[in-house]
Amino acid sequence: MTRPRYAYLGPAGTFTEAALRQVVSGDEAVYLPQTDVTSAIEAVRSGEADHAVVAIESTGEGGVTATLDALAVGSPLVLQREILVPVAFTLVARPGIALADVRRISAHPHAWVQCRRWLADHLPGAAHVPATSNTAPAALIAQDPEGAGALGFDAALVPPPAVAHYGLDVLADGVADNPDSVTRFVLLGRPGTVPAPTGADKTTLVVHLPSNESGALLAMLEQFAVRGVNMSRIESRPIGDALGRYSFSIDIEGHIAEPRVGEALMGLHRTCPQVRYLGSYPKADGALTDVRTGTGDGEYRDAQAWVDAVRSGAAF
Amino acid sequence: MTRPRYAYLGPAGTFTEAALRQVVSGDEAVYLPQTDVTSAIEAVRSGEADHAVVAIESTGEGGVTATLDALAVGSPLVLQREILVPVAFTLVARPGIALADVRRISAHPHAWVQCRRWLADHLPGAAHVPATSNTAPAALIAQDPEGAGALGFDAALVPPPAVAHYGLDVLADGVADNPDSVTRFVLLGRPGTVPAPTGADKTTLVVHLPSNESGALLAMLEQFAVRGVNMSRIESRPIGDALGRYSFSIDIEGHIAEPRVGEALMGLHRTCPQVRYLGSYPKADGALTDVRTGTGDGEYRDAQAWVDAVRSGAAF
Amino acid sequence: MTRPRYAYLGPAGTFTEAALRQVVSGDEAVYLPQTDVTSAIEAVRSGEADHAVVAIESTGEGGVTATLDALAVGSPLVLQREILVPVAFTLVARPGIALADVRRISAHPHAWVQCRRWLADHLPGAAHVPATSNTAPAALIAQDPEGAGALGFDAALVPPPAVAHYGLDVLADGVADNPDSVTRFVLLGRPGTVPAPTGADKTTLVVHLPSNESGALLAMLEQFAVRGVNMSRIESRPIGDALGRYSFSIDIEGHIAEPRVGEALMGLHRTCPQVRYLGSYPKADGALTDVRTGTGDGEYRDAQAWVDAVRSGAAF
Amino acid sequence: MTRPRYAYLGPAGTFTEAALRQVVSGDEAVYLPQTDVTSAIEAVRSGEADHAVVAIESTGEGGVTATLDALAVGSPLVLQREILVPVAFTLVARPGIALADVRRISAHPHAWVQCRRWLADHLPGAAHVPATSNTAPAALIAQDPEGAGALGFDAALVPPPAVAHYGLDVLADGVADNPDSVTRFVLLGRPGTVPAPTGADKTTLVVHLPSNESGALLAMLEQFAVRGVNMSRIESRPIGDALGRYSFSIDIEGHIAEPRVGEALMGLHRTCPQVRYLGSYPKADGALTDVRTGTGDGEYRDAQAWVDAVRSGAAF
Repeated sequence: MTRPRYAYLGPAGTFTEAALRQVVSGDEAVYLPQTDVTSAIEAVRSGEADHAVVAIESTGEGGVTATLDALAVGSPLVLQREILVPVAFTLVARPGIALADVRRISAHPHAWVQCRRWLADHLPGAAHVPATSNTAPAALIAQDPEGAGALGFDAALVPPPAVAHYGLDVLADGVADNPDSVTRFVLLGRPGTVPAPTGADKTTLVVHLPSNESGALLAMLEQFAVRGVNMSRIESRPIGDALGRYSFSIDIEGHIAEPRVGEALMGLHRTCPQVRYLGSYPKADGALTDVRTGTGDGEYRDAQAWVDAVRSGAAF
Repeated sequence: MTRPRYAYLGPAGTFTEAALRQVVSGDEAVYLPQTDVTSAIEAVRSGEADHAVVAIESTGEGGVTATLDALAVGSPLVLQREILVPVAFTLVARPGIALADVRRISAHPHAWVQCRRWLADHLPGAAHVPATSNTAPAALIAQDPEGAGALGFDAALVPPPAVAHYGLDVLADGVADNPDSVTRFVLLGRPGTVPAPTGADKTTLVVHLPSNESGALLAMLEQFAVRGVNMSRIESRPIGDALGRYSFSIDIEGHIAEPRVGEALMGLHRTCPQVRYLGSYPKADGALTDVRTGTGDGEYRDAQAWVDAVRSGAAF
Repeated sequence: MTRPRYAYLGPAGTFTEAALRQVVSGDEAVYLPQTDVTSAIEAVRSGEADHAVVAIESTGEGGVTATLDALAVGSPLVLQREILVPVAFTLVARPGIALADVRRISAHPHAWVQCRRWLADHLPGAAHVPATSNTAPAALIAQDPEGAGALGFDAALVPPPAVAHYGLDVLADGVADNPDSVTRFVLLGRPGTVPAPTGADKTTLVVHLPSNESGALLAMLEQFAVRGVNMSRIESRPIGDALGRYSFSIDIEGHIAEPRVGEALMGLHRTCPQVRYLGSYPKADGALTDVRTGTGDGEYRDAQAWVDAVRSGAAF
Repeated sequence: MTRPRYAYLGPAGTFTEAALRQVVSGDEAVYLPQTDVTSAIEAVRSGEADHAVVAIESTGEGGVTATLDALAVGSPLVLQREILVPVAFTLVARPGIALADVRRISAHPHAWVQCRRWLADHLPGAAHVPATSNTAPAALIAQDPEGAGALGFDAALVPPPAVAHYGLDVLADGVADNPDSVTRFVLLGRPGTVPAPTGADKTTLVVHLPSNESGALLAMLEQFAVRGVNMSRIESRPIGDALGRYSFSIDIEGHIAEPRVGEALMGLHRTCPQVRYLGSYPKADGALTDVRTGTGDGEYRDAQAWVDAVRSGAAF
């Protein structure tokens, strides 16, 4: 049997790989590392991969614009699952280096920023040696374990999956200033069957408004509010044709199979020039959707039955 | 063949009879005069009549509370048609009396108030002789055409239909201070087939709100607004159990067969403790419903087809 | 010193008198009974009275339209206080008649309806002798205590104040089917100083909307909602010039001296063709206004101070 | 007299310099080129510069997140003016090279993308030689005009200001696929006097919502809508503490000195945990603010005067 192919932001050892491992092990799938998010997404569109795992939102940077923009146009893809990965680094070292010996630390500038307080507490005098990616220093240590001089650093901040991959020595785990720092990844595929609702689902949309006026945004939000549909994320992205022209990338709580979500999507379809459905999928945290009185599936069915009966003259 | 029976506020010659004549002639139907609105409505409920014609709103007094309250509870009835009758009186006189001879005028106090300026202009010195109903002075003249002394008046303000019925002499037609003064009547029946939509329809509802807070009224209005359904009348009526507890009698523009109206009614049914549908029927003025972009029948059908296709995995 | 004069719906012994007694005793004021609500209101406008006490709303009938309409136009008057009077009757009898002897009961038709279940339980066979007013049978008994034959009844349902006034024999107190039945009265005067806010106040308004569309009503309600002002009563009244043209009589919770109420009234004044302020006055039930977070007086003052400072360049 | 100092994204020849030249000439000011947007902004905070000119929004990329984030926290700065710069490149060449001779073109990857169609039409076979910035190839040509081999390119896409600065030969002007492509820059300074309103102003804000629920965003938009204030830009930016926690960067039409804007800002201040005012300043396009009926300055003044008079008992 052919193993499914998963494109992701590589090389081996990245946080994206950590997300991918939550989805499927390397034994059951072919991992296809890519150089950037756009390539990972295009690999699914071209058929080179069956799925992709890409970051979509992070605590520190917000929406990943490359992902949002790549999903908003081009042939349709759907989100099938979300995966949360805590953003905590592992401090690794060249062989024989102890924590007390560390003077120079290689780290991608983003990693350095996110660990600054930890480093000030634990390695107050250590200097930053900028790395070009999170995994680059791991590869350098692995390739040249003894080459202290050539490397120019004693230790490095790397994503946890890099440790096993490169066989590195760990000085400290869970290095992060904000213990709640997390990146949200999504599993993508080509459209097919929508997964059944679980009661704890999210639906992701891209919506263009009929005008730039604030009234148009208000009207869109009312399409959700009047059906008791809550929104967990909204981000504006430029449409690109003129200043002030934005589309909105939105996550709502609920599944398109639920009547209140379906009715809200009908409302958007009727009133907005463009609505792209990007999938309904289980929430990573499994928290059940909060369904307001009057908006449950049963209440919708009863209301539909009542209107049908009134229309036929059978009920009043 | 049995002629249909119509209950209405009698006796012969009333404005209600004028409304009834717009619906069906006395040759084709049995006219069943009633002493008040409630009796006319109950005659339909009991089966004594097939239909009733009752006033529901007037320019001067607003909603006819007896009608609104009688329709809001009890076994269901439906509005099948609305009829507008201008409120203009005919000045009639005893035989041989000319306009210049008129000194004392019999009129119901409401009629007198509505013609005060006309009378001041045309019969400045005339005195008011109060009548117990609009048709009472017509009957008196008819019974005793010569009895000047006994009657105590020379002329009377009566509804136009009274002229033919009682064979009266007309001194002036169209007597009214406000030329736009009009009363709206409705034709009632027992529930059955809902008439087909005409594109120029009204739907009448009675709605109880889930709470007395203004937010509840706002939420109800948003159920209409988000579907582009306009409201042409809203009146509060006490529920009767405590101060400040009101139900709302509402006319909206549109027909329950139209998707936007059906969806709005579903919204009310889901979120309000009680919704009574009182019928969808052609508007008397025939003005087509103003359908806002994004709320037309075709747009609703397209949106439903799109959501159905997305749900099945067939479209994105 | 001249005693203040109070106009009210007479004669002596009415429910309105019971409301008036809550305001001022007959020793401290001149009671001026009037034949109807409109006359009571006009007596204040003309200067014939200093104040009036009139019914404005009842559990069973809703708004008292004569009162609402008389206040909506004409020279300005203000509501200064509200008074609640339970609608429970006293069963009185001719001298020497015991409960067991009662066969025929005089009562105004409204009173009869409101006591029907009580009468069915306690006096199952008693017949109804219609009275022309609530107090009429009290006066008849008082004038002719022994005249059984002439009166044609043994007992009567009268308002409690009629007992002392006419010196009647009481068979039963608190006769009412709905124990929560109550009528709300207001004390009126000519404009002058607005009473200080108590934290438990009401403000009454009459508002004309800029158009008949439902959007206009929604926009008016949003003027209140966005400032956290709750509405405790809304009633539509016809403007009188055409069908479907309504003004709204509104009670809101709060006092015009409070910033959130002032700002909401400014919003109405800016966007509605006509707003009539009818007074801010203590609520009869004394329940403190529920002030939502972000709408309190202190929060308004802070916000104003912040905007003032930003405008002056002193704060950011 | 000391000339004012302006920090901007350098080096000489950038689009930011084109924006700065619209504000002040190099003779009247000291231009302080910076390596990035954050440094330019911090130069004003530290007092090293009096002003900064930084990009805030572009047609293709939307909000400039570095600018938005740097303004959202830290010591307050204010926007004093906006400047629009069309994003069109100039094709320059080494001395002696004609359009027909061009085979290899140096360009920053963003520039290459924005001119792709133009290049396909005019120089179909030309190869892309990536540059590290828009101005880097200009500097290389200037330093080594004859060094064809060393440079590795014949021509380059550079911002228009680079032409004069480096004394380059122009092959084509206005090179851009989207003729409406534009970048919006803002002039920043430390807080001081707010400039007087012109009738065509913008106000920029950063707002934190009280909760993540969609109702909170709706409520914020209603604070604007109920005062007729239009919003021309809204962008979400992560607060950074947890997923789904966003602040909003907003441009509204109008000036804080205008009552409707002041009242809307008071509404935000009352109901949102944090509101940062970033200035009111003239719009680059000079288009007068569209003031809806009922929200003009005069209407606000009249409404305030009315409420004041009612509060004092002087008007009704």
